[in-house]
Formats: sequence, C-alpha cells, structure tokens
Amino acid sequence: MSRQDAPPIYLDHAATTPVDPEVFATMKPYFTEHYGNPASIHTVGQKAIIAVDEAREQVADFLGCKTGEIIFTSGATESNNFVLKGVLAAAKIQKPHIITSTIEHPCILDTCQHLEKRGVEVTYLPVDKEGVLNTKSVQEAIKENTVLVTIIYANNEIGTIQPIAEIGEIIKKANQERKNKIIFHTDAVQAIQYLDCNVKKLGVDLLSLSGHKFYGPKGVGVLFVKEGTLIEKIQHGGHQEYNKRAGTLNVPGIVGLGKATELTSKNRVADSKKQQKLRDLLINSILKNIPDSHLNGSNKHRLPNNANIRFDKIEGESIMLHLDFEGIAVSTGSACTSGTLEPSHVLLAIGVAKEQAHGSIRFTLGKDTSEADIKKVLEVLPPIVKKLRQMSPLK
Amino acid sequence: MSRQDAPPIYLDHAATTPVDPEVFATMKPYFTEHYGNPASIHTVGQKAIIAVDEAREQVADFLGCKTGEIIFTSGATESNNFVLKGVLAAAKIQKPHIITSTIEHPCILDTCQHLEKRGVEVTYLPVDKEGVLNTKSVQEAIKENTVLVTIIYANNEIGTIQPIAEIGEIIKKANQERKNKIIFHTDAVQAIQYLDCNVKKLGVDLLSLSGHKFYGPKGVGVLFVKEGTLIEKIQHGGHQEYNKRAGTLNVPGIVGLGKATELTSKNRVADSKKQQKLRDLLINSILKNIPDSHLNGSNKHRLPNNANIRFDKIEGESIMLHLDFEGIAVSTGSACTSGTLEPSHVLLAIGVAKEQAHGSIRFTLGKDTSEADIKKVLEVLPPIVKKLRQMSPLK
Repeated sequence: MSRQDAPPIYLDHAATTPVDPEVFATMKPYFTEHYGNPASIHTVGQKAIIAVDEAREQVADFLGCKTGEIIFTSGATESNNFVLKGVLAAAKIQKPHIITSTIEHPCILDTCQHLEKRGVEVTYLPVDKEGVLNTKSVQEAIKENTVLVTIIYANNEIGTIQPIAEIGEIIKKANQERKNKIIFHTDAVQAIQYLDCNVKKLGVDLLSLSGHKFYGPKGVGVLFVKEGTLIEKIQHGGHQEYNKRAGTLNVPGIVGLGKATELTSKNRVADSKKQQKLRDLLINSILKNIPDSHLNGSNKHRLPNNANIRFDKIEGESIMLHLDFEGIAVSTGSACTSGTLEPSHVLLAIGVAKEQAHGSIRFTLGKDTSEADIKKVLEVLPPIVKKLRQMSPLK
Repeated sequence: MSRQDAPPIYLDHAATTPVDPEVFATMKPYFTEHYGNPASIHTVGQKAIIAVDEAREQVADFLGCKTGEIIFTSGATESNNFVLKGVLAAAKIQKPHIITSTIEHPCILDTCQHLEKRGVEVTYLPVDKEGVLNTKSVQEAIKENTVLVTIIYANNEIGTIQPIAEIGEIIKKANQERKNKIIFHTDAVQAIQYLDCNVKKLGVDLLSLSGHKFYGPKGVGVLFVKEGTLIEKIQHGGHQEYNKRAGTLNVPGIVGLGKATELTSKNRVADSKKQQKLRDLLINSILKNIPDSHLNGSNKHRLPNNANIRFDKIEGESIMLHLDFEGIAVSTGSACTSGTLEPSHVLLAIGVAKEQAHGSIRFTLGKDTSEADIKKVLEVLPPIVKKLRQMSPLK
C-alpha cells in the first residue's frame, strides 16, 4: 500500500473530526426519507420536528438546561457572532463595553475588532505564560458600561483551560450590585469532549458549540441562551428557534449534533483518560528526544488531547508538510487562520517570540488515536526535524 | 398498509424537497471518510477543498459566472440577510434607500423592517392582482440615495414570476448616469428548478439560492456576488470564502448543493414540462369540480409546479389537515410563516380579502409527482371541501 492509500494518522482533531458512524447512521434517514421542513404542519413536517425536538433534549440534557434555551445555528462562528452582535443590539446603553481575552478564537476577535470600529469599547485581557487568565483581571476590568464578558473555555491552539466557573462566580457577585447585568458567554467548542459543560456549574448565560468538533457534522452549531438573557436575533426572517434565529432548520445536521452530545456524554471520561495518556507519551518523548523543543502552554490546565510544541530554528509549516508526506496530519495552528502568514496571536500572547511562533506544531488527538499512531510520529519526527535544521537558513 | 405507513403524496416542494439519492450518494463520503477541514493544508484537508472547488464550479457553471463569485452560506435566509445588511454596511451614504416588493420572502421583509428601525428608507413596491410587479414602478422608485433593489424571482406562495431581466436592464440604464451605483439582487430560491438563472442574462449583481429547495441538503445556500460589488461580510471570523463569510465550510452540504445544480441543469426543461402538465390538470379539475374555488396569482407568469387555490368560506388549515389524514401533504402558505395566525402577506398584496386569504391551499409539485398522485387529490379533495363547508360557521 502506497502512502497515499494508507489511512492517515489524523492528529488534527481540533480542526475537525470525522462524523462518528453511529452519528451518521442516526442522521441518514433525514436526508432522503424523513425530509420534511419542521415548520410544516403536516405529517411529513411533524416527523422532522419530532427529530429536532429529540436532538434539542439531548443537547439540553448535556448542558443541564431547558430545551427552550437551545438555539441551533450553522456553527460556532455564527453562534459567536450572534453573541457579540446580539447582546450589543439588545444593550440599552450608549457606549457598551465588552471584556474578552487575547487568546480567543478569530471569530470572537475579528467580530470585536469590527465592533470597535462602530464605537464599542473592548478590553482584551492578557494571559500568563501558560495561557491562563487571571480571574482577578476580569474583576478589575468590569466597568459601569460592561455588558458582556466572553472567554473561551479551552483554547483551540494550545488547549489551555480557563477557570470559567470562577469567572462565573465573579460576574454573579458583580451583578448583585448592578442594575445593568453583565452577560457571561463561553466558547466551549474545544472543551465539549473533555470538560464538564453544565451551564449552571459554569455560571454562564450563553455558551457556543460546533457539531464538527465532537464527531458531529459540519454546518451545525448551538447557542445556549439562558432564559431571560437580553439578546436580539441577528438572522432575520421566519419565526424559527423561538423567534431567535430565522431559517429552515438543518434537520439531519441537528439530529447528528444531538446524537454526538449523547455519545460524548457517555464516553467523555474514558476517552479523556485514554487520550491524555497517549498525549503525555507524545509530549514527553518529543521533549526528551528532540533537542530545542518546548511545550507551548500549560502542563496542568490543558485539554487532554492537545500537544503544541515549538521547535527552535525551523518552520512549523515545513515540519507539517513532511509529516503529511508520511501520512500524518497535524497543523501549525488554527485552521481558521491558515492561509495567513501572520504568527499565531495565541503564541504571541503567551510570550513566544515572533520567529519562534512560526516553529510550532499542534498535535490534537482523537478518540480513535492509537499508541501505534503516536509511536509512528515519534519514529518519523526526529529525523524530519534534524534534516530541516540542517537545511534551515535560521540556524 | 395503513395510511400512516403509506408513502405520502408530497405536494409541498416549495417548503422543502427530499435530497435526491444521487446527490446523497455524492455527499456521503464527506461525512466519515473525507472529513477534513478545507482550511487545513495537509492531505486530509486538501481532499475536502478539492470537493468544495468542484461544487463551486458546478454552481458557477449553472449561474454562468466565475467560481470566485460564489459564496457558500448556511441557506437562503443567511444569503438574504447578507445582501441587505452587507450592502448597507458597505454603502457610504447617510440615509440609504432600498427598493423591494410587498411579496418578498419573510427573510427579506423582516430584515427590511429591522433596518427601517435603524434609519434605512425602504420602498415596498405593490404588485398587480396576479402578483406581477410593474417594471415602471421600479424605475419611478429609484432615488438619489437608492443603494439596492431586491426582487424575488418567483414567489414562494403563489409562484408568480417577476420580470427580473427587464428590471436588470432598467437598473443598468439608471447606473450609467449615476455615481453611486444601484446594486441589484434577486432571491432565486424557488426559481432555480424551472427558470433560467444565468446571472448575466438576468443582469443581477447578487443572487440567493438554498440547497434544500432543489433536491440538495438543508443547511447550505449560495450567494452569488458579482466581482466588484460593494458588500461587507456579516459573519466575522476566519478568512474563508474569499474573506467574505467566516466559518468552517459545510463540506458535505456544499458537495450536495453542487451536485444538485448539475442535476437541475440537466433535467430542468423536461421536469418543468412534466410538472406543468400535471399542475394544469390539478388546477383545471379543481376549478371545474369544486364550486367557489379560485386560482390565486397568475396563469401565465407562474412557476410550472405551483397551484395556489382559494376555497370560499372554509379554513385552509382544515383542508390541509384533512388532506394530511389522507396521506397528502400540502400547505396553507409559506412554511416560514407557519405558526402565525396572520393572513398571508402575499395574498393580501394581490388583493385577496383577509377572510378569504385564510381559505387558501398551496400545492407544489415535484419531479417525482405522478398522475396517480394528482388523481388521488382530485378524488379526495371535493368531499373534504363539501364536508367542511357544511360544518363551517363562515357559510
């Protein structure tokens, strides 16, 4: 079997995951057989709405909320745009203020920058060298005109986990003394597979998910909207989704996302343990066997599937392409920012120098990653790094 | 076989269509097998981007435009929101003016009403008794501050076809003498299966499509954006879709939509002819055999699959439910406005009285509709109408 035919060793699960076969089997009848529009009142439509209702229950069970608090969207980018623009549209103050961090996903940061041009005030909180936010800095950043705090639960590049529940407590306390309540949002896209996403424990008013990051389909996401949260819809039209998001529901996608939450709920603890063990093998062996390699981010506050490693004096993209030739798929950072030559804003935020940021590789394991996969990486990576360093103009 | 098990006679294709088995077969590998994120540079990602590129070519071929002019969205509601909000965001004048019609889809009308609250001026052009727009009225409505004209190609409730190419000519002429060019958009969601959608012939700058209205999947749509058109993105984040629409691409959905345009292109003429013949049988037989029944909309300027019929002195919803019990799926109007008790804005716009608007049924045929299906409707409908009239408090 030539390399091209071999099933790849896929270590880019933070970019996207395959649809789980069980998820796909659940979605399948809703394409050609039960194809109704859930807004239709006849039997064909009702079969679709029953399926959507079941998915809504699965997601609500997973998040520990009511079904009426689940809004299905086209993905986390839409959910996060909805949060920022929707909360601001509903805010009744003149120059509203948003608190976020320097290591958010591009769909939060780009939207914030867009809003800044329209007169919104944004505070970008710094993180420490491990990528962790100081909760005190959130408290200190709160102002009279603060309407929203949005912090990513676990970072997509370096896997750093933020103390969301602690921030939730801070905001809860602050709100006791305020008339204009601060709304708290977290982007849980990367966290969902590994961390507790119970919205009550986290103390969040809004939470974003994306189907394709946890073995569900692409093109479907969720925004949890706590009952009573002041947010205006941003996609106008029909009365779908409790009149909060117009547009025909993506029934097969929603059914798949629902099933994926159910499977995640069942397998999370065991999967996390398994992946963390393999991930630790990967990190420890690389740091031990490849000179001038460093772990980006935190050891302790880290998603169990994430290894982001910096190799001095070579380009991450070259490593990535060489690994790809060996049938190993990894990335140099967020898929959403690929195509740009800018160094990762996340790595810069944790204090990595510009020239070093370019030498980083993100490995993100998945539920089907095996020890053999990791051993293959550990076998082919050292000679690749060695060869590239010999060729490097940076050395 | 009991009624519940019988395959339904589905005559609600304007609400949604089943995914064509050939379309589904084309999409299938992109869920579990070629699951890459098209933004990823490795081989797994490249397989996804190749598939997206092919779909983009299929759509561009269909519309007669360049691949770089095709933006994939989550559906027509997003595309139409994008048009209105994106053109306004890019417009550099103080109180911009939009021209539209009274019989647009709710996602245009609701967005226009939202924008009016924010100081945008909107002209809603009336239509005649058949639902046709007078092209002169477009010409007369154009003002110094007009930035956008948006007219639905074929109406979703009564199937009336608008003279889009003529309006395109009017705007082209008007633009020759203007500095701030007027942008012309059409919502071609219902038209795509039956009418020529060549964007050059239509003279449009923007055109919206939805996958699930022509045997493609739900959750995916298109916005054609003519090169050079001044429009700002409304979904911020990554650099996807030529930096015009952020968010991970819905690869299987896009692949399915691409295939669906290819099939539509191949079958359109024959399908239209077949459906029109059956549709005429339906209309003529109903009007002949059921007293006090009337066709809503135009005979001549009408989609070949649409029959919208008004029955005096009974509720459309009652007819619909009785037909559903007989295994026949029809609707009382747009699926997007179901759940409201308001009479159809389209029927009111063509001069139907409020109490009569409630007595209308929309039958929309599809490619698999058979003569037996129509004969079954013609067999069960007259006694239903008779029975309901006997019970009616309106008689």
